[in-house]
Amino acid sequence: MAETRLVLMRHGQSLGNEANLFTGWNDLDLSASGHEEARKAGKLMREHGFLFDAAHCSMLKRTIHTLHHCLDELNQAWLPEYRSWRLNERHYGALQGLNKDDTIARYGREQVQQWRRGFDVTPPEVTLDSPHYPGNDPRYASIPVSDLPRAESLATTMKRVLPYWQDTLLPSLRQGQSLLVITHGTVMRALIGHLNGLDPEDARTLEIPTGTPLVYESDETGTPRHAHSLDSSDVRIHS
Amino acid sequence: MAETRLVLMRHGQSLGNEANLFTGWNDLDLSASGHEEARKAGKLMREHGFLFDAAHCSMLKRTIHTLHHCLDELNQAWLPEYRSWRLNERHYGALQGLNKDDTIARYGREQVQQWRRGFDVTPPEVTLDSPHYPGNDPRYASIPVSDLPRAESLATTMKRVLPYWQDTLLPSLRQGQSLLVITHGTVMRALIGHLNGLDPEDARTLEIPTGTPLVYESDETGTPRHAHSLDSSDVRIHS
Repeated sequence: MAETRLVLMRHGQSLGNEANLFTGWNDLDLSASGHEEARKAGKLMREHGFLFDAAHCSMLKRTIHTLHHCLDELNQAWLPEYRSWRLNERHYGALQGLNKDDTIARYGREQVQQWRRGFDVTPPEVTLDSPHYPGNDPRYASIPVSDLPRAESLATTMKRVLPYWQDTLLPSLRQGQSLLVITHGTVMRALIGHLNGLDPEDARTLEIPTGTPLVYESDETGTPRHAHSLDSSDVRIHS
Repeated sequence: MAETRLVLMRHGQSLGNEANLFTGWNDLDLSASGHEEARKAGKLMREHGFLFDAAHCSMLKRTIHTLHHCLDELNQAWLPEYRSWRLNERHYGALQGLNKDDTIARYGREQVQQWRRGFDVTPPEVTLDSPHYPGNDPRYASIPVSDLPRAESLATTMKRVLPYWQDTLLPSLRQGQSLLVITHGTVMRALIGHLNGLDPEDARTLEIPTGTPLVYESDETGTPRHAHSLDSSDVRIHS
């Protein structure tokens, strides 16, 4: 276990995944399967003898609850926990809460495909009076208004994730801490892309399974290298 | 709600309470009733419209799980959470894990009464090779060995609680934060005794119900005053 310093994991299946919604910063909980996936991931890490020094997740309950299930199974509920909006899913703007099929029926498949997979394409913004505008949610009260997104492209999401890696996660790893990070599909793509030196435009096509720990061993400088998935799922990393 | 700045609460019933054990730093979970009590307390705070800025608890899962139930019911799972050994229950030394009736049968009622209620009486210490010695538990690895107890009296417990009040909780309250603090019976006695200006030897006789929010309104300096219990339980405070 000595060289293992970082486990990244996407939350378990959410109610938004289950109902095929654009979820983003909409705070939907795990589905029943998602709770089970999270417990299973925790058991798997326990069987491998993982012991962490701290845990990080987003401000959204699907990562927070996934983390709590994992820590309970690991018998490490006492671990320090840190939450950051920078680990939140991509903000889907005015599409948040909409069903993906309904959106295709309304705007056409090509437009929706552009919003979902175009690297630099931003969906329609939320209005400032929308409950989906983060400025109306007390959990984001301490974040400068200029940082609060009204919609994000894949490019802008990746851009706001990386400072958390550089300023918070990497320094902790270099001090010898072992970290568990529970986050979202787009954030996983950003972090894996960065860690594995992928072209950002290529990273966007990675398929990230829910509830599957991705383990990085560290090199002598404390920088994570050599990812492997803790079960047989293929996360299609080309490092 | 503007003046409410502090809610103190003892965790829900634990498996140790249920089985009549000396529990202390032994990390026993909530009982089924304890989980239910915690959810009920969270619902009660939600009905009263509580919104907190941060939450504090001990390093033991009975306070951590109580906190998580409360935050889920409050829909504030995203709140920053801080854990400290200074909010742990009194360390019961070599008595930890023993049944209270068995202990009375072995040592006599008077001796056990002395260990439980004598203000300055310390139970027998744990040995350094005991799993109950905090130095053998990775969660306490960052605490100076000289601070790690091998057994605590009521007096030494109260003494190690107060720096957390002075250095962490009170400054946050004075900055205008609203805090939810989930802790243990002995720590509640220490904090209530301090806040209500009780003689420490008198504070030890307070009966603290499990899962019952105790609400302090703040005065103009941000110092908590005027406690009231959020349900009809009487916590017998004389302020």
